[in-house]
Amino acid sequence: MSEEFSGYKGEALKAIKKAEAEIGDIIRITNNSEAYEGILIPRSEYGDERHIILKLKSGYNIGVRITSSTKIEKIGKGAKPTFKPPPLVKQIAELPKVAIISTGGTIASRVDYRTGAVRPALTASDLYSVVPELATIAQIDAQILFSLFSENITPKHWTQIAEFVAKQITDDVEGVVIAHGTDTLGYTAAALSFALQNLPVPVILVGSQRSADRPSSDAATNLIGAVTAAAKAPFAEVALAMHETPSDTAIAIHRGTKVRKCHTSRRDTFKSINTTPIARIQDQKITMLTEDYKKRDSKRKLALKPAFDEKVALIKFYPGMNPTIINWHIENGYKGIILEGTGLGHVSKYCFDAIKNAVNSNIIVAMTSQCIWGRINMNVYDSGRDLLALGVIPLEDILPETATVKLMWIFGQTNDIAEVKKLLKTNIASEFSQRTFSEET
Amino acid sequence: MSEEFSGYKGEALKAIKKAEAEIGDIIRITNNSEAYEGILIPRSEYGDERHIILKLKSGYNIGVRITSSTKIEKIGKGAKPTFKPPPLVKQIAELPKVAIISTGGTIASRVDYRTGAVRPALTASDLYSVVPELATIAQIDAQILFSLFSENITPKHWTQIAEFVAKQITDDVEGVVIAHGTDTLGYTAAALSFALQNLPVPVILVGSQRSADRPSSDAATNLIGAVTAAAKAPFAEVALAMHETPSDTAIAIHRGTKVRKCHTSRRDTFKSINTTPIARIQDQKITMLTEDYKKRDSKRKLALKPAFDEKVALIKFYPGMNPTIINWHIENGYKGIILEGTGLGHVSKYCFDAIKNAVNSNIIVAMTSQCIWGRINMNVYDSGRDLLALGVIPLEDILPETATVKLMWIFGQTNDIAEVKKLLKTNIASEFSQRTFSEET
Repeated sequence: MSEEFSGYKGEALKAIKKAEAEIGDIIRITNNSEAYEGILIPRSEYGDERHIILKLKSGYNIGVRITSSTKIEKIGKGAKPTFKPPPLVKQIAELPKVAIISTGGTIASRVDYRTGAVRPALTASDLYSVVPELATIAQIDAQILFSLFSENITPKHWTQIAEFVAKQITDDVEGVVIAHGTDTLGYTAAALSFALQNLPVPVILVGSQRSADRPSSDAATNLIGAVTAAAKAPFAEVALAMHETPSDTAIAIHRGTKVRKCHTSRRDTFKSINTTPIARIQDQKITMLTEDYKKRDSKRKLALKPAFDEKVALIKFYPGMNPTIINWHIENGYKGIILEGTGLGHVSKYCFDAIKNAVNSNIIVAMTSQCIWGRINMNVYDSGRDLLALGVIPLEDILPETATVKLMWIFGQTNDIAEVKKLLKTNIASEFSQRTFSEET
Repeated sequence: MSEEFSGYKGEALKAIKKAEAEIGDIIRITNNSEAYEGILIPRSEYGDERHIILKLKSGYNIGVRITSSTKIEKIGKGAKPTFKPPPLVKQIAELPKVAIISTGGTIASRVDYRTGAVRPALTASDLYSVVPELATIAQIDAQILFSLFSENITPKHWTQIAEFVAKQITDDVEGVVIAHGTDTLGYTAAALSFALQNLPVPVILVGSQRSADRPSSDAATNLIGAVTAAAKAPFAEVALAMHETPSDTAIAIHRGTKVRKCHTSRRDTFKSINTTPIARIQDQKITMLTEDYKKRDSKRKLALKPAFDEKVALIKFYPGMNPTIINWHIENGYKGIILEGTGLGHVSKYCFDAIKNAVNSNIIVAMTSQCIWGRINMNVYDSGRDLLALGVIPLEDILPETATVKLMWIFGQTNDIAEVKKLLKTNIASEFSQRTFSEET
């Protein structure tokens, strides 16, 4: 099969050939009364024989089922996006130096309509061609570390990112930007918050919800916000820069341990949970929203602690959950379990024996809440008190995702159970917020 | 050990005896510079020997550690709350009849300060004594089905609740109210939405975040809202009545399949996800917020479908998740797996083999998003297309919790895989919302 039809087979391939269409062409598919127009793009190697994938004008892709009555017409050659040749940007020597590291994801890519392949576009000159404003904010050194969709980022990658960031933090770099897919951006932000301690400069993660080839793309504004923060922000912490609202007016800077992806498609998907963002950027102007942050200090010496241990599980409780799943983790050498319990930090009494087993096997069992917002309090009801008595560790208002990352990180530092417990309860990277009145209302 | 010291042993018991205190007494515990005053309450049978549990003035309980330097003083006898004898309420014959069923939880309880035990308080006369306004809204028939904290409610209880509700729906009952703990109230609301089809009258679940013995209790206002909806609302669906905002001014009525507990402690913890509440109640006046609802019709015949099958798992994906956990479910006879993936509906490629195994073993694998808000779209990125090609079923904008309940319910109806898939994709109880423009912004 030629590359032109990559992924298509059977009926779908037959129909495409009959229409004399190729990957990249604009085609119209008519199924009874419904018609779809879009660019024919390649399909997954796991694909069946009955669907054709179109990139619609909106930028989204859909799969259209081919039946005996389906009509396919080729209505045009795909409009190949022409990327301007990179302008001859002269780096302005007075501007701060910012290192940009790409790990992949939507923000780091543009779609090649010819093949449908996603291409990383993060050499400095590519970036300047897509976002020319960057040249007025900073001198950029762009490097590609990986090209991964972020659902494929694992704790091993967190280690590699942390080590790579540490290498970029030299005497004359004012900040680091990490381009990353949004799916697990919150997890990586938490991971780097623990792995990169005592930072001299800001480390800003950034993603985008719509690729640069879509009219509604947030890639450029997010990137400008991230580079602005890296170059000029007064704080030296791991943070995440994304749209604050659905419109393009403001970028919110969220603390790495307190942020979560809260919408599948909106541009303002990331929210600071149980706290406010630490800063807002509008028109390249940074407004700090808290006074409680670690100040930038180029003389501070980074403490790199990049190890993570994957023998930590996140288990979300639900009615009817089989507690044997906890025993499975004991038998499979797990060192820690983060429970995503209900309400103030509960799971069913049917899980108590399994939890007791885990604690007796020297496994750390700690509690967070699937409510997402609010603080757990295991002293209010019997279930909570019983769980505390069994040895479950209550984790205040930490996100379940951050708790999981933190426990992986702790076991990367030590296997001494007393030390693990102590670190788990210690506020290392602002993962616990101060108790406020409003959370009680 | 006498009941007076139930649960206490070792050092804690010794310290209590030395202070000549009993359960129910007000005591002051001084640990170095910190002092705590509160009512001595019984502790968990799992309790250690070093903590004493106090109910503070705020209504919350804390555990105070006893050391050699701890001082305990008895400073008073516990102020026993005096519940007024139930007023001689004359049920007003013209008022609509509402059946209230209690399953337990904070709303259905009051704390007996003498023993610390939580007592269900849901006889009709108890209810009138706590919330006298109810007598002006409806004629109430109150029954206690269970007294369970909702984290202990399982799918078997959903079946019992559904069957019990069905029995209450007689010719002259205008609506049913179910009092239930808030922890898993959303899950039960979803379960009843599938189990009670073709309802003639509304079925309103209600909970409270603060028990009736706390000054900030939401129990009375929520209950008034729920009874008002059951008695008078124009819709006949399963819904949930809770505070709309932190203040007492409005009760939101959420559709049973679209609602989730989103804060550990706030009174407005329940939110309709990807849709608005269906109604708002202010001053016992009901305002519908949608025109898309099933109208009340006393002649409609309820279709009771109360069976659930627990061989369905909810698995939340996280970076570093061991895909073997999916295989464990295959080996243990599971029929369905709801994945709580990232973003638009992704999990790592490291899980693909296990998912393929599951699908090849005739296990239903379906996708939801841990973002909570938004709709999944598995045609946008490679990971999504690959997962679709593997046979993973995309579940639109359904909540992961509702998806899990729905699949348990479907397997309670049929084991025919084609029929299961068809039902999973069918909008049975408004669990899928219409696509709107705003979700794309």
